[in-house]
Amino acid sequence: MNQQAQWLLPDGVEEVLPGRARAIEQLRRGTLDLYQRWGYELVFPPLIEFLESLLNGAGRDLERETFKITDQLTGRLMGVRADITPQVARMDAHSLRRNAPTRLCYCSSALRTRPAVAGGTRLPYQIGVELFGHSGVDSDLEVISLLLETLRLAGVDNEVVLDLGHVGLFSGLLADCSLSDAQQAQLEDILVRKARVELDTFLADSSLPDAASKALAALPWLAGDAAVLGEAREIFQDFPAALAALDELDTLVSVLSQRGVTLHLDLGELRGYHYHTGCVFAAYLPGESEPVAKGGRYDHIGEVFGRARPATGFSADLKMLSARTVAAGDNGILAEGSLQDADFAAAVAALRDQGERVVLALPGADNDAQLLGCQRRLVQGDNGWVIQDK
Amino acid sequence: MNQQAQWLLPDGVEEVLPGRARAIEQLRRGTLDLYQRWGYELVFPPLIEFLESLLNGAGRDLERETFKITDQLTGRLMGVRADITPQVARMDAHSLRRNAPTRLCYCSSALRTRPAVAGGTRLPYQIGVELFGHSGVDSDLEVISLLLETLRLAGVDNEVVLDLGHVGLFSGLLADCSLSDAQQAQLEDILVRKARVELDTFLADSSLPDAASKALAALPWLAGDAAVLGEAREIFQDFPAALAALDELDTLVSVLSQRGVTLHLDLGELRGYHYHTGCVFAAYLPGESEPVAKGGRYDHIGEVFGRARPATGFSADLKMLSARTVAAGDNGILAEGSLQDADFAAAVAALRDQGERVVLALPGADNDAQLLGCQRRLVQGDNGWVIQDK
Repeated sequence: MNQQAQWLLPDGVEEVLPGRARAIEQLRRGTLDLYQRWGYELVFPPLIEFLESLLNGAGRDLERETFKITDQLTGRLMGVRADITPQVARMDAHSLRRNAPTRLCYCSSALRTRPAVAGGTRLPYQIGVELFGHSGVDSDLEVISLLLETLRLAGVDNEVVLDLGHVGLFSGLLADCSLSDAQQAQLEDILVRKARVELDTFLADSSLPDAASKALAALPWLAGDAAVLGEAREIFQDFPAALAALDELDTLVSVLSQRGVTLHLDLGELRGYHYHTGCVFAAYLPGESEPVAKGGRYDHIGEVFGRARPATGFSADLKMLSARTVAAGDNGILAEGSLQDADFAAAVAALRDQGERVVLALPGADNDAQLLGCQRRLVQGDNGWVIQDK
Repeated sequence: MNQQAQWLLPDGVEEVLPGRARAIEQLRRGTLDLYQRWGYELVFPPLIEFLESLLNGAGRDLERETFKITDQLTGRLMGVRADITPQVARMDAHSLRRNAPTRLCYCSSALRTRPAVAGGTRLPYQIGVELFGHSGVDSDLEVISLLLETLRLAGVDNEVVLDLGHVGLFSGLLADCSLSDAQQAQLEDILVRKARVELDTFLADSSLPDAASKALAALPWLAGDAAVLGEAREIFQDFPAALAALDELDTLVSVLSQRGVTLHLDLGELRGYHYHTGCVFAAYLPGESEPVAKGGRYDHIGEVFGRARPATGFSADLKMLSARTVAAGDNGILAEGSLQDADFAAAVAALRDQGERVVLALPGADNDAQLLGCQRRLVQGDNGWVIQDK
């Protein structure tokens, strides 16, 4: 195999070189500090878990996205996490078991078998927050507000369009429809793809009441500005659960509009919401087909771990989110001496303790000051070591 | 499956809960800032690569430690990295291709098929530095000094014993011995296990010159304080490459002893040094069988990527390294209001902008101030929102 082929990285797998890595680290710290100020506690869920633990309650799509590996110690199947939210939900339900609302945040790598969109990454550096133990619109508003602060920190808040939807409209309709599980799954699949002809056929073949049939036919195309909420209210007037979902959206739209957020409502959007049950949202940058951040309410994921806690949260790929972040420049000192010399070593250590960046010039090497990020030099003067401008 | 079995984590796989996670994050930032001050640039190598790229030049043992997965896009085998050093060497040799010495650092998760020691982790949170482009003792001294600073930051420098060895003693002997590749591999395997009887049998069966046979018989047991260097000098007097290795160790021992470092020399130690070629070292905490940090020189790993650069570095598991790190405590404010109220939202935002940690009391929830890390409250006063002590 030639050298070219040896180093080639798989599609959707990226290495991050110095300048970019520093910008990402800068935003990582800024966001985690932001989450700390909002009361979110950092956790590190493990990169791998037994497969049934990783996928439990997390929906069907996640299984396809998860790489499986065999535990050589037990022979059991394990998975490399494709999403971190279900892991954090398990930690809340099983490991923490608090009664108070629990706010957790994380920043770790996930791994997907395939990119979510063509040309996308398989290695998101996922940052996010989860809020467990509260089911009202106040917690939805808290995490959406924190998402907007995250976008502000990343310098992209002015460009972003926030898509808002609510899985409760679809589930509120289904509750009154007495469809079989297989029919529900088929219908959901049709709606995810917004396949109009298939949907018409499905509705014609099923014996749903007229009001439900009409509402389902309209649902995928209820998208646009806040006016669609009024339209939806008429269509869903016979479905109390769907009307409650619209009430929540009304509140969110009212508060967020006052704050000047650019909103787009998409009431039939189900794509990518594997385990969600309530209000869902996604932030899009202009020209991007993949959202820069997304989230929503998922109230049932902890049930399989013996503890149903209401939950809401969001996540973002820090590599995508940091596109506008520029790393601070270097103003280093190139130090020309050897650590074998105790005086020199002490002078260098003192400068570093003051926060200076000091790079050693190694004997016989091409110590290119510019490439090493150094604008100054530490050289031997008559009375000890002194800093000179380049 | 019952709930207990569903959440159980595999052996050697840990989740990190809030207090510990914060301590780890604190040390992560401190060490990366330290490496920045020493001129090391942060990189993020990818979690997965094609297998041949990941294992190339990295030695035989690494393959056993690496989980393999199949790329669904190409059908080719990929691996989840078990070690990050070879990835960083590839980035230096292939992606950066600088002539100047290149200093890189990283902090990312790795994954091993089995723990290195019984009860050890399979998920090290690996932090480390690599210095490429210089082959003298000055760069060895730089990375060992930086390792010691890392241990100081972690608060474990006073307890640590630093094991020093040199793979060049063994390879310096072999250079004059004209053994076949199979014999060399067999001999190395015997030395790694320090299997005295097998070694005696091997040496009796081989037709090595007397001086080499005598030196090889002595090598695994040349361990102890600095006096073993003199002993070794006599035994290796006919082997110039081995004597050059001893010169390097002499220099390191002299400088490090002056700094008060507790040293232990182990001249025949080869265990765990898969790709190393020169001076090697490992830092041990009392009572631990696994080193808290280890590293050394590896001058040939970049060759398969078309660029042989001398290299030295070290790595540590941040989870193990942070055992003595205690996270800063919280002094938060529990804020009793709703973000739907613009005045309240503005008061909370102002406090957070000042760096305060403000946790919202969610309506109807059990907002336990202590559990939420809050010693103060934000309440509605006669003239707006005011902070009260608990």
